[in-house]
Amino acid sequence: MATVPLITDDAASAEVLAVFDDIRATRGSDFINNFWRALAVDSALLKATWERLKVVMGPGDLDPLVKEMLYMAVSITNGCDYCIHSHTAAARAKGMTDTQYGELMAVIGMAAQTNQLVTAMKVPVDEVFLVQSDKT
Amino acid sequence: MATVPLITDDAASAEVLAVFDDIRATRGSDFINNFWRALAVDSALLKATWERLKVVMGPGDLDPLVKEMLYMAVSITNGCDYCIHSHTAAARAKGMTDTQYGELMAVIGMAAQTNQLVTAMKVPVDEVFLVQSDKT
Amino acid sequence: MATVPLITDDAASAEVLAVFDDIRATRGSDFINNFWRALAVDSALLKATWERLKVVMGPGDLDPLVKEMLYMAVSITNGCDYCIHSHTAAARAKGMTDTQYGELMAVIGMAAQTNQLVTAMKVPVDEVFLVQSDKT
Amino acid sequence: MATVPLITDDAASAEVLAVFDDIRATRGSDFINNFWRALAVDSALLKATWERLKVVMGPGDLDPLVKEMLYMAVSITNGCDYCIHSHTAAARAKGMTDTQYGELMAVIGMAAQTNQLVTAMKVPVDEVFLVQSDKT
Amino acid sequence: MATVPLITDDAASAEVLAVFDDIRATRGSDFINNFWRALAVDSALLKATWERLKVVMGPGDLDPLVKEMLYMAVSITNGCDYCIHSHTAAARAKGMTDTQYGELMAVIGMAAQTNQLVTAMKVPVDEVFLVQSDKT
Amino acid sequence: MATVPLITDDAASAEVLAVFDDIRATRGSDFINNFWRALAVDSALLKATWERLKVVMGPGDLDPLVKEMLYMAVSITNGCDYCIHSHTAAARAKGMTDTQYGELMAVIGMAAQTNQLVTAMKVPVDEVFLVQSDKT
Repeated sequence: MATVPLITDDAASAEVLAVFDDIRATRGSDFINNFWRALAVDSALLKATWERLKVVMGPGDLDPLVKEMLYMAVSITNGCDYCIHSHTAAARAKGMTDTQYGELMAVIGMAAQTNQLVTAMKVPVDEVFLVQSDKT
Repeated sequence: MATVPLITDDAASAEVLAVFDDIRATRGSDFINNFWRALAVDSALLKATWERLKVVMGPGDLDPLVKEMLYMAVSITNGCDYCIHSHTAAARAKGMTDTQYGELMAVIGMAAQTNQLVTAMKVPVDEVFLVQSDKT
Repeated sequence: MATVPLITDDAASAEVLAVFDDIRATRGSDFINNFWRALAVDSALLKATWERLKVVMGPGDLDPLVKEMLYMAVSITNGCDYCIHSHTAAARAKGMTDTQYGELMAVIGMAAQTNQLVTAMKVPVDEVFLVQSDKT
Repeated sequence: MATVPLITDDAASAEVLAVFDDIRATRGSDFINNFWRALAVDSALLKATWERLKVVMGPGDLDPLVKEMLYMAVSITNGCDYCIHSHTAAARAKGMTDTQYGELMAVIGMAAQTNQLVTAMKVPVDEVFLVQSDKT
Repeated sequence: MATVPLITDDAASAEVLAVFDDIRATRGSDFINNFWRALAVDSALLKATWERLKVVMGPGDLDPLVKEMLYMAVSITNGCDYCIHSHTAAARAKGMTDTQYGELMAVIGMAAQTNQLVTAMKVPVDEVFLVQSDKT
Repeated sequence: MATVPLITDDAASAEVLAVFDDIRATRGSDFINNFWRALAVDSALLKATWERLKVVMGPGDLDPLVKEMLYMAVSITNGCDYCIHSHTAAARAKGMTDTQYGELMAVIGMAAQTNQLVTAMKVPVDEVFLVQSDKT
């Protein structure tokens, strides 16, 4: 079904294998999911994407679970099926409870609805929001 | 610029004023932002939207700031200008730091990029993600 | 394939069953489609969504078939596969003819095309449209 | 603000003027809105778009106001500001009442919300919807 | 799975067959892909779409492969699965190399990411870009 | 209007200035456009985005103008106003003619329309497209 071949370890070049090794070491797991096997059709794209993702999703001021839920929110809004599956699974693995999942659904459903209404009505931005943002 | 009139307090019906009053009481502020003044062209829609939003964005298992950042993530992905301004301002008012803002940007930028790549390559969902989600 | 379990009647809580009962009574059919069984993972979200949908899609000034076709137009533009299937089926059940379906396709295809061109060219809004809308 | 010049009648080629003339004759108005003046940078694209639009939005089995509201629904979902302004104005000119506008808002807001939820939960299509559609 | 029947040659009307014949003659192949068989439920829509597509994707100043890659870029951004499959196959048939495919992926991934960041930050357009575009 | 401050050279940290210097050296111009001044609120995000963009849009097998037009196609489909302005200006600076612009518009308009129709009709992917892609 993919529009590209999924590169197995046996078919991988040295550059690809080096990225696979780093994914395995970083995650402490032998498993390489299909996204990386697909991206491996272009080793430079694979390397650049993985190295950036590792930093972005790594330790920071935002909680790892919060980052996963933000990733879910974008992926759901973009309608990316694979991403929805993989990041929902990842969020659960990081401790997302059923209640948190329900609240996440409620927030993104509400946002989608009010986004649509605001866009339809071309609501002008309140002065106070501009002021609040400009003082950063 | 709006495609509807923005209803002032003076022009508001009793039903609309009752919602405005509840917004003021809930938020502890006299200010009514333009979204609600625009929605007021249909008092039933105004009431239903506000009452649901009050619950969804109210106390729960997810932190109020996390909810705002999720709202931002969806609004940015949908390209809703007003919503981006209002929810960015709201997140800052709830304590979002510059570092957290930078991390939020990094996550949503990364998600947008990988969503696009996954969609392009039609990556098949790994069995393990399905299993992980189905055991909920 | 779903990222949540589909709640059967047997697995449903009292709150969920009450909503299922109202869906059955409102529609005059014993059938509960999968959307509601999925939403049932969060009974509050299920109840809020159903009660609002019942009002929105209920009797009003717009014809029920027109409402279904509007729902189709949004769902198609958002690329929501399940929604496209369910609302296309619903529109046919409400009497949409093949000719009407063809015209609907033609309008949404045309709109998608001109939306894209307008966005590309950043066409400024004509004064007359603003005036026409502001006199509401 | 536009990324292309808006072609005035004086600057228009014979091919462009012929389309402008047909727009004026078809609409019974001397006014040419900016979309057509922008598209006029490519006379072949202008002609093809206008001739198709004239047919698509012309007489048929769907009511002209319904066609405008469907155009609005797609334009709002795509976030095309110019299109939202022009088609909202057109719908009002064709008789859309405030109540109908409010119902339209309610339907597209509801659809955006349920689209998002369905996409998040990857709800599998019910057999009955497939059957219903396949018997066409 | 389709929401419409796929019209076979045997079930096709004379108008539909005439379009199918032209597709075959233009492409020098007997094969009619499913998009046209689905569109055939409305012969006027089929004819208008095919005749326009033939011109748009026909000879011009842009290379045929470049046109296919542009079509891919839009289809991927819109998340249209069928279109991604058909236009990726078409681009390969027109000579797209693996390296070019990798670069295409890199560009659209980058664009998706910066689009998201720009939208989030509401970056004002630089004067110089307006000037550059207005001098066309 | 921006939701973040635009960092001037005077307000920039050493890390930010180093990126600004590289942008200037790479482009052979003293001008820094607003996107980079906005991104500079997070120096790590600025650096990562610029360094990746420099590679992606740098020399390769795809012509620089083709890359710009692909960037335009994605930006237009995502409705990113700033990006549409900046990349349209960039494509013109790289030699895009008015005829090429017209053809680009025609292709993206056509793609948007057929994407919408395919999505509406849930057209199943032809076997031959899968085969063609799998042999890569």
